[in-house]
Amino acid sequence: MRVLIMGGDGYLGWPTAMDLADRGHDVCVIDNYLRRTIALQTRSEALMPQPDLTRRAEIFGSVFGKQVRVVIGDCASYATLQKVFEEFRPEAAVHYAEQPSAPYSMIGQDEARLTVTNNLNTTLNLAWAVMQHAPECRIIKLGTMGEYGTPNIDIEEGWIEIEHKGRKDTFLFPRQTGSLYHTTKIFDTDMLWFYVRTFGLAVTDLMQGPVYGLSTPQSDADQRLLPNFHYDDIFGTVVNRFLVQAVQGVPLTVYGKGGQVRGYLNINDTLQCIRLALENPADHGELRILNQFTETFSVTQLAERVQRVGEQMGLPVEIQRIENPRKEAEEHYYNPAHSGLLELGLEPHYLTDGVVASMLEQVLRHKDRIDEDKILPRVRWKT
Amino acid sequence: MRVLIMGGDGYLGWPTAMDLADRGHDVCVIDNYLRRTIALQTRSEALMPQPDLTRRAEIFGSVFGKQVRVVIGDCASYATLQKVFEEFRPEAAVHYAEQPSAPYSMIGQDEARLTVTNNLNTTLNLAWAVMQHAPECRIIKLGTMGEYGTPNIDIEEGWIEIEHKGRKDTFLFPRQTGSLYHTTKIFDTDMLWFYVRTFGLAVTDLMQGPVYGLSTPQSDADQRLLPNFHYDDIFGTVVNRFLVQAVQGVPLTVYGKGGQVRGYLNINDTLQCIRLALENPADHGELRILNQFTETFSVTQLAERVQRVGEQMGLPVEIQRIENPRKEAEEHYYNPAHSGLLELGLEPHYLTDGVVASMLEQVLRHKDRIDEDKILPRVRWKT
Repeated sequence: MRVLIMGGDGYLGWPTAMDLADRGHDVCVIDNYLRRTIALQTRSEALMPQPDLTRRAEIFGSVFGKQVRVVIGDCASYATLQKVFEEFRPEAAVHYAEQPSAPYSMIGQDEARLTVTNNLNTTLNLAWAVMQHAPECRIIKLGTMGEYGTPNIDIEEGWIEIEHKGRKDTFLFPRQTGSLYHTTKIFDTDMLWFYVRTFGLAVTDLMQGPVYGLSTPQSDADQRLLPNFHYDDIFGTVVNRFLVQAVQGVPLTVYGKGGQVRGYLNINDTLQCIRLALENPADHGELRILNQFTETFSVTQLAERVQRVGEQMGLPVEIQRIENPRKEAEEHYYNPAHSGLLELGLEPHYLTDGVVASMLEQVLRHKDRIDEDKILPRVRWKT
Repeated sequence: MRVLIMGGDGYLGWPTAMDLADRGHDVCVIDNYLRRTIALQTRSEALMPQPDLTRRAEIFGSVFGKQVRVVIGDCASYATLQKVFEEFRPEAAVHYAEQPSAPYSMIGQDEARLTVTNNLNTTLNLAWAVMQHAPECRIIKLGTMGEYGTPNIDIEEGWIEIEHKGRKDTFLFPRQTGSLYHTTKIFDTDMLWFYVRTFGLAVTDLMQGPVYGLSTPQSDADQRLLPNFHYDDIFGTVVNRFLVQAVQGVPLTVYGKGGQVRGYLNINDTLQCIRLALENPADHGELRILNQFTETFSVTQLAERVQRVGEQMGLPVEIQRIENPRKEAEEHYYNPAHSGLLELGLEPHYLTDGVVASMLEQVLRHKDRIDEDKILPRVRWKT
C-alpha cells in the first residue's frame, strides 16, 4: 500500500514511517522541519541528536533494506502537497503535519497565528489533495484527547446522541480545550467532518492521549533511529520531563494540585493503532473517531511512579508542586471511552515499572546533554 | 463611545457605522474592499452603484453633519489592526470583517483557503488587539444561524445543558453547517470562546439569520447611502434573488423542494440588535450568544410572498423549482430559540407585504442594471 506520512520527521511520524516500510508498505514522508525550526528558536531541542530526514532514511535503508521516500516540503503549501499526490498517488495519508505544542501556541500573537494558519492549511490542503488527486485515498488524521477537555460527563468516542425536549439527534461530542493549539485540533475535526459529509472523504480521526516511549523495534536495532525525545516545557510531555528531572537529580515539578488526569499510551501502541486504522479503513462518507490511549493517570500518579522506579534504581527523586503555568482544572471528573481500538485488535503495552526503568536508562545514557534551563515552565497562560 | 466597525464597507457594516455615528458615537470603519474585489472577480457586483468608503463617509458627513473615520486596511494583518487599536482606542469593536459568501467558499481550493485564512485571522487578530491594546473593549461578533445547521432538536441560544449517563454539563450548542464559510464561523465562535474563558474577553456573538432590506433612516435621506444590494448567486440572499427575478420577469428559482426554513430579519432590526448589544454589554469572561432573527420562513413561503405582492403590483411572477446546487436538507425540523434580544428590548419589523412592495419598488428603479447572468447558480457543492 502506498502510504504518505505528512509530518514524517516528528516524534510519531518517523517511527510510523519505519514501521510501515518495515512491513512492506511503500512509504513516502513529507516534512518541512517546522518542529525543528521552532525548537531551535525557542531553545527546546530534543535530548538525543536527530539526523535529518534524508539521513534517517539512509540509515533505515542500510539497516533494514527498505526504502522510505523523503520529500522536504511544506504541507501548508497546496502546490507542494499536490505535487506529492500527483507523483506518489497515495492510497492512504497519515496526517501528523501540525504545529504540535500547546505552550508554543500560547506564547504570543505570531505563534498563535502560525499555529492556526499551519494547522488549518495542512488539513484543508489534505482534504483538497484527496478530492482532486486521489479520491480513493483514506485519511488517518491524528486528533487529540485534548479536544474533549475535561467535561463533567463521560467522554464518548467522538459522537454523542443528545435527547433534548423530547427529540433526539447525534452530534460530534462537544469539545472545549485548554490551549489554542488544541482549539485548532477541534477545527481540524470540524473541517474534515464538513468535507466527509459533503464530498464523501473517508477519514479516521484518532483522538490520541500523550504518548511515551523511546523504544521501537526499529530504534532498538540502531540508536540513530530513535524517536525525538523532547523534555522541555514547549514540546516535552509530562512523562519526559519527569524522566529527565529524575535522572538530573532535580525535583519532579507537578503543575498545581497534580490531579489532571489524562489517557496515555506507549509509542508502540500508537504504531499498532495506525496499522489497525489502515487495515480497517473508514468508509467513504464516514468520519470514524477512535479514542487512542490505553490507561489513565493523574500527574501526581505519574510523578509517584517515576519516583518509585527511580529510587529502585538508586536515583534520589523528589516531587515538588509548582504554580500551574496553564489555566486548567487540577481536579476533575474524567471517564473517556476507548473501546473502539481494542475491538479492532489493539493489544496494549502498559506503563509498567519495567517500561519506566528502561526509559530512565535511556535518558541516563544521555545525561550529559540535559539542559536544565529547558525544563521549567517558560510559557504562562497570560497576556 | 468609540466604536470600531471591522468590515465597514459591507451590507451591514456601512449602515451600522451610519446608525451609530448618527446617534453620536465616535465611529471608525476599517475595510480592505475584499468583498468588492471578490464580487468583481466573480462577476457578482451589486445592483446599485456603491461609492467607495471614503466617499460614502463624505456624503454621510455632508447630509448628517457627523464624521465617520475611514481606514482602508486589512484586518487580517495584525500590524494594521494594531495600529488602528493604538490610535483609535475603541471601547467596542463590531466584527463583520469576514469573507461572507457560502458559495464563494465552495468554488475551489484557492477560495476555500482565502475564506479560512481571512476569517480565522481577522478574528484571531481582534482577540489579540483587544488583549494587548484595549482590554476593556467589548467585542460584538457577527455569527450566523447557519452555524447550527438544521438539527433534529430545538436550537437554543448558543448553549445547551447535556445530561448523559446520569451526569450533567453545559456546552456550546453542537454546530454542523452547510458550507465551508459557515464552518469558519464555527471556528470563530470556538476561538473567541477559548480566549474569553482563558483571558477574560467580553464577547457578544450574534447568530444572525439572512437579513433583507434596503431602507434605513440614513439611506432614505440620500440614495447614495444605500446598503449594497447583491442579487447574484455568490453574495445575494434568496430574498434579493426573488425580488430581482420578480422585477425582471423571470421565474423565481427555488432550490430543490424549497422546504429549507431559516430565520430572517429586517436590516433595521440588525441595527437595533447591534445597539442593544452595545448598550447591554457582555461581562468580561462571558461569551453571550444571542440568536438574531425575528421570524422564520421556508424558501417556498418566501417565493409565494414575493409572487403575491409582485402580482398585486402588476408583475407577472412564476415560481420554478430547480436542482439544488447545494447539499442541504430540503425538508427538516427547525425550532430555534430567539428570546434573548426580545428580552433586551428588540422591537421587530416584520416582512409585511408593504415591506416586500417597497423593496420591489426600489429594485424596479434600477431594473436597467439587472444582469440575468448573475442570478442562476454558478457554484455547485461538487468537486
